[in-house]
Amino acid sequence: MFKFTNVAIIGRRNSAHLIDQVVQLAASLEDLGCRVYLDSSVTSELECVGYRCGLISEWVDELDLAIIIGGDGTMLAAGRILVDHGIPLVGVNQGRLGFMTDIASEDMISTIRAMLVQQEYYAEERTLLAAEVWRGPQKVQQTIALNDIVISRGTLGSMIEFEMSIDQQFVHKQKSDGVIFSTPTGSTAYALAAGGPILHPHSQVFSIVPICPQSMSNRPIVISDAVQIELCITTDNNSILHSDGQEYFKLEVDDRVIISKARRPLRLLHPLNYSYYHTLRTKLDWSKRVS
Amino acid sequence: MFKFTNVAIIGRRNSAHLIDQVVQLAASLEDLGCRVYLDSSVTSELECVGYRCGLISEWVDELDLAIIIGGDGTMLAAGRILVDHGIPLVGVNQGRLGFMTDIASEDMISTIRAMLVQQEYYAEERTLLAAEVWRGPQKVQQTIALNDIVISRGTLGSMIEFEMSIDQQFVHKQKSDGVIFSTPTGSTAYALAAGGPILHPHSQVFSIVPICPQSMSNRPIVISDAVQIELCITTDNNSILHSDGQEYFKLEVDDRVIISKARRPLRLLHPLNYSYYHTLRTKLDWSKRVS
Amino acid sequence: MFKFTNVAIIGRRNSAHLIDQVVQLAASLEDLGCRVYLDSSVTSELECVGYRCGLISEWVDELDLAIIIGGDGTMLAAGRILVDHGIPLVGVNQGRLGFMTDIASEDMISTIRAMLVQQEYYAEERTLLAAEVWRGPQKVQQTIALNDIVISRGTLGSMIEFEMSIDQQFVHKQKSDGVIFSTPTGSTAYALAAGGPILHPHSQVFSIVPICPQSMSNRPIVISDAVQIELCITTDNNSILHSDGQEYFKLEVDDRVIISKARRPLRLLHPLNYSYYHTLRTKLDWSKRVS
Amino acid sequence: MFKFTNVAIIGRRNSAHLIDQVVQLAASLEDLGCRVYLDSSVTSELECVGYRCGLISEWVDELDLAIIIGGDGTMLAAGRILVDHGIPLVGVNQGRLGFMTDIASEDMISTIRAMLVQQEYYAEERTLLAAEVWRGPQKVQQTIALNDIVISRGTLGSMIEFEMSIDQQFVHKQKSDGVIFSTPTGSTAYALAAGGPILHPHSQVFSIVPICPQSMSNRPIVISDAVQIELCITTDNNSILHSDGQEYFKLEVDDRVIISKARRPLRLLHPLNYSYYHTLRTKLDWSKRVS
Repeated sequence: MFKFTNVAIIGRRNSAHLIDQVVQLAASLEDLGCRVYLDSSVTSELECVGYRCGLISEWVDELDLAIIIGGDGTMLAAGRILVDHGIPLVGVNQGRLGFMTDIASEDMISTIRAMLVQQEYYAEERTLLAAEVWRGPQKVQQTIALNDIVISRGTLGSMIEFEMSIDQQFVHKQKSDGVIFSTPTGSTAYALAAGGPILHPHSQVFSIVPICPQSMSNRPIVISDAVQIELCITTDNNSILHSDGQEYFKLEVDDRVIISKARRPLRLLHPLNYSYYHTLRTKLDWSKRVS
Repeated sequence: MFKFTNVAIIGRRNSAHLIDQVVQLAASLEDLGCRVYLDSSVTSELECVGYRCGLISEWVDELDLAIIIGGDGTMLAAGRILVDHGIPLVGVNQGRLGFMTDIASEDMISTIRAMLVQQEYYAEERTLLAAEVWRGPQKVQQTIALNDIVISRGTLGSMIEFEMSIDQQFVHKQKSDGVIFSTPTGSTAYALAAGGPILHPHSQVFSIVPICPQSMSNRPIVISDAVQIELCITTDNNSILHSDGQEYFKLEVDDRVIISKARRPLRLLHPLNYSYYHTLRTKLDWSKRVS
Repeated sequence: MFKFTNVAIIGRRNSAHLIDQVVQLAASLEDLGCRVYLDSSVTSELECVGYRCGLISEWVDELDLAIIIGGDGTMLAAGRILVDHGIPLVGVNQGRLGFMTDIASEDMISTIRAMLVQQEYYAEERTLLAAEVWRGPQKVQQTIALNDIVISRGTLGSMIEFEMSIDQQFVHKQKSDGVIFSTPTGSTAYALAAGGPILHPHSQVFSIVPICPQSMSNRPIVISDAVQIELCITTDNNSILHSDGQEYFKLEVDDRVIISKARRPLRLLHPLNYSYYHTLRTKLDWSKRVS
Repeated sequence: MFKFTNVAIIGRRNSAHLIDQVVQLAASLEDLGCRVYLDSSVTSELECVGYRCGLISEWVDELDLAIIIGGDGTMLAAGRILVDHGIPLVGVNQGRLGFMTDIASEDMISTIRAMLVQQEYYAEERTLLAAEVWRGPQKVQQTIALNDIVISRGTLGSMIEFEMSIDQQFVHKQKSDGVIFSTPTGSTAYALAAGGPILHPHSQVFSIVPICPQSMSNRPIVISDAVQIELCITTDNNSILHSDGQEYFKLEVDDRVIISKARRPLRLLHPLNYSYYHTLRTKLDWSKRVS
């Protein structure tokens, strides 16, 4: 009947008014004939009757769609779980427009209904980064990121040092607080705070943004997302690899970090009136008159 | 016999030691059996015997290759003339490595010979920008740029204002000293001075870099080079359009500037040992130990 | 009786609702026993009866206080006329808080009354810059600025070049779009757009902020306001000296520009609840939650 | 006889050629009639005969002068020990000019001799920062810094949050990777890497430089060094206080950090040909032609 029959609802744990939204949305989905799955993130204060309740990660093979209620951080976490199963995501915010959670709470029911019944949505693919850490001949860690892979210093005050190559070509040796490898999606998050450029979601590039580099001529670099980047850690003090700011892994001297485009992109569904530039204007306050 | 038979030599007018290089190069090319064309930029102090001497723009249909002796500025000027005729460029510097003039003076003869005889070169395409200025229904100006199209304020102290759209979607209204639309090639020139990112030549993007914007959240944006950008000038004080910093055109209120990828890319031939990252390291002094 | 008997009203020419504010304020001042002077900027649409109407610059010797209605630009213009006569300024905004026009329109009458009758104000001195242009043995221009003295390029696309010394010590040769010499007052205006730091009004310093410098290690410098700066223009293309963005003067090659603290500071009167940091928060939107 | 009779030599532990320099310098000082003290940092590979050898911190009451051989980091460490005893410092570098170690190795003997015998030196005072950490009614930490006090995040990926007041006036709440409070001396160190301005040593100010702030309008602020700054940590994740990058202390939620000018400045002696701007030009490579 519908393209999207098995629909999961995932939320930002412990957020206000979440239950009301979930109850309302689940009922509306059931009305449309969907089978509703409730992630444990939304069922903590909810009696689970009539729906499949549990850890969403256990049903990834059955799902056709996931609706995320929360902020961009909730989208990041869900996206990293669902991307490998090709399940598209829809984001509903809880008051403030997000870069990915672009459906307003009050429009939730009508917008989702239009998406499911009339197929009124704008589908978009977002590239992810994949990172592997190699220690000698051993792969000791692997992760994917929708926003960014960050290598940065830990507790100690001293800068970290590493050598970077792209497609086997030596780029440079850098001394800094760290470096951000950002997707277009992540370019408006941490990379922006570190002075990186905004990358339009449809530009097929990554940015490499140094964090407080010692050399003043180390600037953000934008490269094709088809490249393979290799970092070799040359100091043993305290480098750490962060993935979307949600996972971290301690690096050692001589560790090699390999970064490239993840095998599969994330699919996002936006309402038809979605405009990336509108989100930019709103989030970055471009419409405000300055003086 | 060779792929490149008709070879032009173009130089940086009035630069030191130019004649020596030209005489040497021309003799070497003749030796190889090439037909040599000398642009008027290199013949001012030279007696022209045996070669075709004149304005290079008159022979664009005959040429197979142009060798430029000088700096990146000389390449820009030559590139803008030759790009529409598909003639590849080779750049010889006069002492300091350039981003495009990457053959050292002392290696000129041997490198060019290897390029022509053994086809030992690395060919690369560089995207150009095309800009049109529309005043009401009239196109009043058109130009192309290898580095950048810049809209900026003129003599008066006040900022300029404009509205920007990309692919018919409104982006924002900006008040600033100006804005730079940069190709990857131009990203290490003026756009870098204005705080823009470095764009790898193979990333298929442009950057839009605001110059001293009034809003602190106006940041450089990187977009696919397949888009069409439209600017509408909303102040009449004194906006000026610059093309590669070599041509300028006065804009009026309500002028619309249309910017997109130029129809043809420029072809550059590099020596086989060419490395973009090596050039970055050298030009931006990345190898220097800072403290 | 009062400390401030002869009070001028100056406004932003042609601004909406100005007449209403002027009429109301003038009546209130007369009520308090003040002698009211109306600058020509506020009398264009006003029938002038009962007050002294004309160019404020003609009464500078009689005035005890000037009330400015408008934005920071109006304050700048008035300040540059009144500073040498030691007349304090009070700023009333027209809807949006200004860095200097800090009294809200709706509080105008009560605040001014408290200032005049109960001496309830916070007086502050703001440093100005003085600039002189010397051409050979001749002083060809002199000006003062409450915000900034800017040397920048004009219509042509090429950068300007100059040499800078401070207290007779050579600082460096710079190639850039220009340079801003900013007072603490000006540090939140153009200097901020060019990447300069915010200088607290009570820090006794100036900032020197390069505009799009060619060298990436040219950064804003903050120096004691007791120094004397000398610039020597070394290119003849098209350098221009701007004073507060309101006056400009064309410079020639070999012109020397001497910049130092102006002889007299400007006196500002703020309402007692004035807080510089509150203004910063409001103007720079620091209270906004970003994500 | 001399102003400086008891002279200590302090060095950068384990640095190459240090012994040769120390032996040579100690002999020369003895020749001049000085009593020589050798810090344990320079005696590790040296047989200690004829001089007082040990921990310099034990003789601080006897010393008239300390000569530091090494880089700026060695100066920082020595300065933090000696400042409270009013002992002036002289810095000798080991090949590369430092901001404070401004005497070249090869000029060491002649320059130091001229300083001691002919009093040929330029004395300068450098301001330090003092920081205290209060946990409830308890002062749990205090430290001083010649370069900077830094509050920054530790191992976790998430930003830290704090509220800042200056002289009891609320400034703002910030979410960022951290914040740097820098002296003029420190302004060319970490603060510069984070985008802060260069502060001339004689400007009586501190800079407050945010590290990757979430709000794009959070910019470096420069304030009089007579103020008192208070930070209240509002997140408990993992804030850390660093002093000159050489000491660190873990902060907890609700900790208050009080920062102000240290009681005593550090006295530096420079050779007569010292020029701060020369050091800037050399260290920041301003003399390099960029293109």
